[in-house]
This record gives sequence, C-alpha cells and structure tokens, in this order.
Amino acid sequence: MTDRIGRLREAMATLDADAAIVTHPANRRYLSGFPDVDHAPDESSGFLLVAGDDAGLYTSPTNIPWAEGSVRAPVTAAPWEQPWPQFLGELLKKSGVKRAAFEDRAMIVADHAVLTEAAGSIPLIPAGIAFHLVRARKDDAEIASIARAASITDAAFLAATATLAPGVTERELVWRLELAMRELGADGPGFPTIVASGPFGARPHHDPTDRPIEAGEPIVIDMGAQVDGYSADLTRTIVVGEPSPEYEARYNTVLAAQTAALASIKPGMTGRDADATARDALVAAGEEAHIIHGLGHGVGLLVHEFPSLGKTSDDVLEPGHVVTVEPGLYYEGWGGIRIEDLCVVTETGVEPLSQAPK
Amino acid sequence: MTDRIGRLREAMATLDADAAIVTHPANRRYLSGFPDVDHAPDESSGFLLVAGDDAGLYTSPTNIPWAEGSVRAPVTAAPWEQPWPQFLGELLKKSGVKRAAFEDRAMIVADHAVLTEAAGSIPLIPAGIAFHLVRARKDDAEIASIARAASITDAAFLAATATLAPGVTERELVWRLELAMRELGADGPGFPTIVASGPFGARPHHDPTDRPIEAGEPIVIDMGAQVDGYSADLTRTIVVGEPSPEYEARYNTVLAAQTAALASIKPGMTGRDADATARDALVAAGEEAHIIHGLGHGVGLLVHEFPSLGKTSDDVLEPGHVVTVEPGLYYEGWGGIRIEDLCVVTETGVEPLSQAPK
Repeated sequence: MTDRIGRLREAMATLDADAAIVTHPANRRYLSGFPDVDHAPDESSGFLLVAGDDAGLYTSPTNIPWAEGSVRAPVTAAPWEQPWPQFLGELLKKSGVKRAAFEDRAMIVADHAVLTEAAGSIPLIPAGIAFHLVRARKDDAEIASIARAASITDAAFLAATATLAPGVTERELVWRLELAMRELGADGPGFPTIVASGPFGARPHHDPTDRPIEAGEPIVIDMGAQVDGYSADLTRTIVVGEPSPEYEARYNTVLAAQTAALASIKPGMTGRDADATARDALVAAGEEAHIIHGLGHGVGLLVHEFPSLGKTSDDVLEPGHVVTVEPGLYYEGWGGIRIEDLCVVTETGVEPLSQAPK
Repeated sequence: MTDRIGRLREAMATLDADAAIVTHPANRRYLSGFPDVDHAPDESSGFLLVAGDDAGLYTSPTNIPWAEGSVRAPVTAAPWEQPWPQFLGELLKKSGVKRAAFEDRAMIVADHAVLTEAAGSIPLIPAGIAFHLVRARKDDAEIASIARAASITDAAFLAATATLAPGVTERELVWRLELAMRELGADGPGFPTIVASGPFGARPHHDPTDRPIEAGEPIVIDMGAQVDGYSADLTRTIVVGEPSPEYEARYNTVLAAQTAALASIKPGMTGRDADATARDALVAAGEEAHIIHGLGHGVGLLVHEFPSLGKTSDDVLEPGHVVTVEPGLYYEGWGGIRIEDLCVVTETGVEPLSQAPK
C-alpha cells in the first residue's frame, strides 16, 4: 500500500502538484483500502487527500468505524464536515498546499465550484486519468483476485448453461448465471449480466427480457463474477439445439479473429494495433459492415478502464495490464456473435484467464 | 410521459432556460424511459436534451436499438458522436438555444469544460436539484412499483430470518435475504444489504463480514428489493434467542419514537419538524448521545433522494412523497437498534408501505 501511495506521489510530481485529491471510487479504494462506492453523482462517500507526509481518507462520521477498519497504512481515516468540498478547501489551506491536483473526471461541477471558492488562491489542477494510471499494472494479488473471478465466471457459465433448453427466458437465464456465480463464491455479478437471444443479439448492450430462447438461434451471454472488488468479463455465444450453417460460418469467422488476436497481441503495441489484429481478420472475411465496436478494454476495479483496445486508441499495452479480447459481428434482425476472453498482458504476449469452452 | 416533460419545461422556465440537459441517470430514466445507468463518473450512458419542441435521448450508436425500444413519447432516441460534450455543444448551437440549464450535480468538471468550449456564447445555467424535484411527487404507477418492492422486501425478510440460528455469518444472512428477494420477484437488491451483528450494529453503514451471529445480541438488517428501478428500504432489528432486558428497553425506546413519528408526520411539515417527532422522544428518554443520524430520506429511482428528514432540512413534505422513517440508537461496543418503514406521504399523514413485524 505504501508503494501505491508512492506511485500516486510520482503522478502528483508529473502534474507539478504537492497535493492529490482522489474522489473516484475505484482510485479511492485502490489507494486507501476503503471499499465504499458513491451512491449517486452528488453523494460522495469520501475523498483521499495526500499532501505533505499525510494521506487521509475523509468520510462521514457514521462511516468512520468502517473506514478505520479498512484503510491501510500509511492512510488514516478521519471524519469530514459537510459540505465536504468546503471542508476540503479549508483543509488545503491549513495544510499549506501550493498546487492541488483533483480528478476532473470524477468531481461534479457543483462540488468543484464550492471547493474552488473555499481553496482561495490555491490552484486546482485537473489530473485527467493520471490517478487511474497508477492502477493500470496489476500486482500479483490483484491478478489472483481477477483470476479467481474469471474462474468462477467460467464455472458458472458452464453450470447454468449445461441443461439449457428452449423456452427459458433471457431473464431466467440471467438469474441462473448470477445465482451460480454467487454460489460458486463471487460477491455478486460485477456488472449486469447480458443474455441477448436471437435478434436481440444484434445489440451489444441489451436489457434482458422475458423473451423465451428458441432452438437454433444465437444466444450472446456476457457475464462477470466480482471478487474483492475485481470483475471478470466473459462472453460466449451458444446455440440450443442444432446450429445453422450460417451460424457456424459466422461463429468460426469471429473465433478465427479472436484466435489471431490472442496469438498476436504483445506488450508495446498500441490499442489501435491490438484492435487491428482481429479487425483485419474480420475485414478479410468480408464482414467489415458488421463490426460495431472495438476489440476490448482494460478491466480491474472498473469493468471498463485503461487501456482501450480500439481503432483510435493510442494506449500502449504493458505487462500487468488485464484486458478483454472480444471481437464480435452483429446482424440486424438475425443476432450477434461475440467471443470474449479476459487476458493478462505478459512480457511476451497475452495469457487468457478465461477458460470456458468456445 | 408527456406530463413529465411538461413538468421539466416548467422547471426550465423557473431557471429562465430554453433548453434542459439531463445527465443524472435517475432523471434521464424518469424523463425519457431509457433505463441504462452510468458505468463510471466519466462514462455517461446518454443525455436527454429538451429544447424547442424536441426531446431527444442521445446515446452511443450501439445503444440505439435498446434506447429506441425504451424511450417513450415525446422523447425520441438518437446516436451521439464522441466526445459527447462537444457533440452536445454543437447541437445547442444548431438548435438556436439561448440559455441551457445543465445538472451541475451530475456533470463532471472535464465534460463541462468541453461542453462550455463547444457551446460558445450560450450560457450554461446550473440547475441544482431542479430536475430531481420533477420526480419528487410519485404518481400511482410509481407508488405501485414501490409498494410491490416493499411487499417483496417484507416477505423476504420474514422468509430469510424465520429459521435463523446462531452461527450463521453476516454474509450468509445477506445472501439468504438477497436470494429471497430475487426469488420473490425483485430485479435484485436496490442497494447492498446490511447485516450488522452485535458490536457492528453501532455502525449505521457496515460491510457485512464473516462474523457468526451470536444468541442474544442485536442484529440490524437493512435491505430493499428493487422493482422497475424503484427500491424499497426496510430496517428491522432482531435477536436470535432471548433478548436481554437492556435490549428490550432500548428497542422499545426506538419503537416508541418511530410510532410517534408515524403518527405525527404530515404534509406541510419541514424535514426538520418531521425529524423532531422522533428525536424529541429519544431525547426525552435520555438517549440523545446515541442518536447519530437523521430520521429519514426520500426514496424513488434513487435510494436517497429529496426530501431529507433531518435536523437541518428545510425540505417540505408533500402528498406523494415516499420517505423512510428510521430512528436509531447506537452504542459503541454493544451495537445498534434501528427500525425503518418506507411510507407514502398522504393528504393527512403518512401511510407505511412496510409491513414486516416489529
């Protein structure tokens, strides 16, 4: 944990700031240990202030016992006063801060206005995603949590689909999958499980319905167990009953693209280049019109985080990044095919954590 | 739905704005019908723009089929281009907007900076909670959803605690409660279920642990099923085995305070006056030192929303508000007692939706 705060201090230095205000729940958790989420955009559960030699996690007085029990050295927990942006501004002044970096991507305009007023002449420097980047390379403990989440996800997928028959609705299958994840030891699903059957599969994001699954149609299942705050992310496309030749052809096109990507992605590549490993295969198969999203994204305390694997991404892959590799093809009126593995970027390539059969 | 947009237009008029930018997920859902949540502070799922005669829900192209299937007239769905704050600023200019109200409590600083630049000379007016207030009085359909959520919550509480025995851990009981809610028809829990046993009950917010429940100690259970996006909110404090005289005395003090509150709260009261109905009873019983939070809060598409029932709240209760009434007492080292009912404010008082025995 000292190391994490040390890396935050390095990020502060690049911003020429002598204080860091951390308000994004994932960054706050990673850096302090306090696991609470925010309950709404305007209902923060706390901020971490690193200034001088101090690292304080400030939260409501009623949260203090929980915070004291969860923060890790060198972070200490302390109660804030409301309105907290005003309290924070005064704290910056009392601490003799010269330039405070804040998360402009995780602070609402109203809180920023109060903070700016209260901080007086202390400049507030937008940190962009600098504090997120401190979390980008996962350590062994994090990878162990993510691997366990992936393994539970694989097992739950298998358990819940083993006896799947036509007539089960999307929502019923979602519940079977989520129940299985929980029973296998997950803290819950890390994001709302997607079951998109038949034509609904043409939507990469889909709110599951009471539509009964039919034999022979593609069923896209996108799911992820959560363990220690880390989510897995797995997509498989299956058929109940006999697949059509059309399904088989499309499935094999996506699988070949994913296989190519898994074999080619390496540290040092940009997200754009990684994306091209699968995209080129899909384009070569004449399916360009049916690609509607990038290849993948980083996964950690957030289900979508740095780096992005997409056709406009300059993010550079490094060992210790955990990313999805999920090419897909989508056909309006027919459905979709997506195959997604969660992978660790290693020194030489990527190692899939997802092991569910394809 | 037309009526909802009509009330939004009234709120715009009070802000002297001819356009409203709605980004808070709860307000966006209420006003447009599109149910998606935001995945992170800097990962919006869409905005609603009401300007002139138009009401457009803008979201990512991949979300469009889902959005088209869920928006309700007069709202129409349309794809945005990224970065969306820039797209939005250009849209404001194209639409000839003079003054645009935006949610300063639901827009991050970084998005606001891009929007401000792109909107050029069009003033952006902070709306505060004005768009939330459009949702404050619940209509019959909303109250029906909330009542169903409350009824499922009551039944799940009873089912999961009926055979509770010492040795069950907090986390195991949480899972029993959440499973029961789901099996009884909830879409899931509306917020993380709290089981705080023995000394942990001294924390109003608590992350359930693997601590086994012991006979005779207070167990605070705070839970709520979600139905149609609406959460119930119920707290009961129970004992497995024989309650101590101390427990009984403290329990009865809280129950008497809650009973007084339920009998006294009426529309027209401020949140401060509503809070006093229970606080005065607890203070009269000599327990002032053990009060650590206000009496309650509004509940709707958000678990915590307007109005606030607390000792500094000027919010005024109106028929159709749905609020919690949840006095509590907390003793460091011993535990807590909290009793919470979800209630509808009627023309003459409050009507509890929660029916679980006390």
